[in-house]
Amino acid sequence: MFAPAYLDHNASTPLDARVREAMLPWLGGGRWGNASSRHEYGRQARAAIDQARQQVAAAVNAHPTEVIFTSGGSESNNLFIKGAAANLPVGRIAIGATEHPCVREPARQLQRAGWRLDELPLSAEGALDTQAALDQVLRDKPALVSVMLANNETGVLNDLVTLAKTQRAQGGYIHCDAVQALGKIPLDFRALGVHGLTLSSHKVYGPLGAGALVLDKRVELEALIGGGGQERGLRSGTENVAAIVGFGLACELQQDDLPQRVQHMQTLRDCLEIGLQKMQACLFGVQAARLPNTSFFAFEGVDGETLVGKLDRAGFAMASGAACSSANPEPSRTLLAMGVAPELARGAVRVSVGQGTQMSEIESFLLALRQTLNELKNLTALAV
Amino acid sequence: MFAPAYLDHNASTPLDARVREAMLPWLGGGRWGNASSRHEYGRQARAAIDQARQQVAAAVNAHPTEVIFTSGGSESNNLFIKGAAANLPVGRIAIGATEHPCVREPARQLQRAGWRLDELPLSAEGALDTQAALDQVLRDKPALVSVMLANNETGVLNDLVTLAKTQRAQGGYIHCDAVQALGKIPLDFRALGVHGLTLSSHKVYGPLGAGALVLDKRVELEALIGGGGQERGLRSGTENVAAIVGFGLACELQQDDLPQRVQHMQTLRDCLEIGLQKMQACLFGVQAARLPNTSFFAFEGVDGETLVGKLDRAGFAMASGAACSSANPEPSRTLLAMGVAPELARGAVRVSVGQGTQMSEIESFLLALRQTLNELKNLTALAV
Ligand SMILES: Cc1ncc(COP(=O)(O)O)c(C=O)c1O
Ligand SMILES: Cc1ncc(COP(=O)(O)O)c(C=O)c1O
Repeated sequence: MFAPAYLDHNASTPLDARVREAMLPWLGGGRWGNASSRHEYGRQARAAIDQARQQVAAAVNAHPTEVIFTSGGSESNNLFIKGAAANLPVGRIAIGATEHPCVREPARQLQRAGWRLDELPLSAEGALDTQAALDQVLRDKPALVSVMLANNETGVLNDLVTLAKTQRAQGGYIHCDAVQALGKIPLDFRALGVHGLTLSSHKVYGPLGAGALVLDKRVELEALIGGGGQERGLRSGTENVAAIVGFGLACELQQDDLPQRVQHMQTLRDCLEIGLQKMQACLFGVQAARLPNTSFFAFEGVDGETLVGKLDRAGFAMASGAACSSANPEPSRTLLAMGVAPELARGAVRVSVGQGTQMSEIESFLLALRQTLNELKNLTALAV
Repeated sequence: MFAPAYLDHNASTPLDARVREAMLPWLGGGRWGNASSRHEYGRQARAAIDQARQQVAAAVNAHPTEVIFTSGGSESNNLFIKGAAANLPVGRIAIGATEHPCVREPARQLQRAGWRLDELPLSAEGALDTQAALDQVLRDKPALVSVMLANNETGVLNDLVTLAKTQRAQGGYIHCDAVQALGKIPLDFRALGVHGLTLSSHKVYGPLGAGALVLDKRVELEALIGGGGQERGLRSGTENVAAIVGFGLACELQQDDLPQRVQHMQTLRDCLEIGLQKMQACLFGVQAARLPNTSFFAFEGVDGETLVGKLDRAGFAMASGAACSSANPEPSRTLLAMGVAPELARGAVRVSVGQGTQMSEIESFLLALRQTLNELKNLTALAV
């Protein structure tokens, strides 16, 4: 089987072998059943979910009863935003300027229903401009605020603690999409002080199909999916036991050796970026506090799609612009919001390393990149 | 490992070994990735999803582009009902009297938003009273109608063809929850004539975490989960490749040998019911057209919970009342709607056999049941 070097961990991660082992009993390995059933099969499923709930809670310093399992990050974001809004009068919502579409889209739905939607200001380095955001929130008093902790494209981190404190003090809700932060930086629901925290399993070497909304119980949400009343009535549907079990263990494993893993990723990333700089890459967001695994860059005059396509054929899997969403040839919204010129933004390419990435992969990637750039330059020279 | 006889297939089914094999490559077996990524990993994920879409479509005589993958049956029902209503003026919705909570709950949410919610009349045998339902729909002209094809408790089948034709002719939408029908009776989206059909993977020996809404493209739905724009913009979130692949194959397998499987389940069910009748059980819905695998019954003066608890300890997993939802000690709504007295309804017990159920399990179940009933009778005699 052809196995290109995988340098796209922000899009999705391979399943950890230990997670796979924990899931297998629930996938044709003798365990199954509806966790609501009051017989031996159902009780075992319920116990497995309870354990996973504790694991997820422990990973983010929350109480297990604050963890609501969903099908993933997109659902969690939609659940908080639409679910909270459904119990509030039409008002104002403010979101970060570089939010993922699964925050922007529900916010736009509120806008179509009469809400006023504002964006919070960004610094040139791609982080939330904390002081300007504070001023805006104090002035506008939005009922809902949603800001991501780590950006999926640049990896830039936002500082939310003061904003959360302020938003709470004035009686509003604040939600944080921490999908890209989990497993890459320490994450503390209590210390952050937000009302809702979104997590996704498949970004942390857990399976697809599970995520969580960690929720302050004082928030009254309307369910997106109503029915049997699972997850405290906030998310109905027979629980996906295998995925939840896997997600729980993935969270635990991430916590166990976070410092080592961060060190590993950062070493690779730094080596990559030294190489990129030698090739005159323009690196985005490098002055800001960032995730340890993400590099977002462009080469002047080189189209990102073309570059990614050529590197794909050369055996390197990476992303151009935002990779989490469907086919979308627009230049990165994040870069435009940072004030990057559209021509340069169209060149953007993302490398995101992971726990399994090898230094040799980075080295051969740099070689292949240099060769590809030379080819493209020769083509351009021929065309002139 | 203690493995009780599993007689609760309407709550959830064990994963088919062939489905497990098809899923394993996507669960730590060398394949992973975000189906939206434009590199080798992403393209493989996309191709696997496309194939599953064809398998699901073929199983219900729909076109692959009509299949929207969701996380399960509850989400599909909520997506159709709330998603359609969001694009309609406040109006009327009519649902069957025995719908699953994941149809009733979204309908109630519409009611709280000003919609008028009506129930469609039921025959004494537990099926939709087709003529009375037609009259009601012609009179009230509801914008939305939702009726299940097969009831999860009684297994009773509804005849929807004329109702769908009528509802369509007057410009309204009609949706059908076919979660319990798939894999137990032939299912034909075209012939049914409904606008939306809900399917769930874990009821047909597929994995938890996948389901579908088969959707007539003329229906304009608002997404429950907005974001990256997956599933034609109707269901955002990184696709759960493993679960979708498993669901696709499970649908194909169900189609391959439906007649044999129906024959197998019906033989077991008939044998079971002969035994039950000898013990003076009251069998519900037996005069109606029914699923081949479901028996719903009660013994006068015997509490269903107690009976199920004792049989659980004796090694038989089955359900009392509705098992798909969370802890709910109310007597079965379905039975009450059929006019069964609450005392008798509280005794209700459901046995649902599956493709792996053995005749020996039915025989030992009947023995254990007789013994348990005798014990309970002796206890009652002592208490008097
Ligand atoms: C920042 C961010 N939020 C949310 C999501 C959506 O999560 P999921 O794929 O689990 O729906 C993603 C990635 O897809 C993301 O990068
Ligand atoms: C008739 C019916 N509809 C819907 C559902 C919900 O499906 P899911 O468990 O996939 O959410 C069930 C069972 O739980 C059911 O029996």
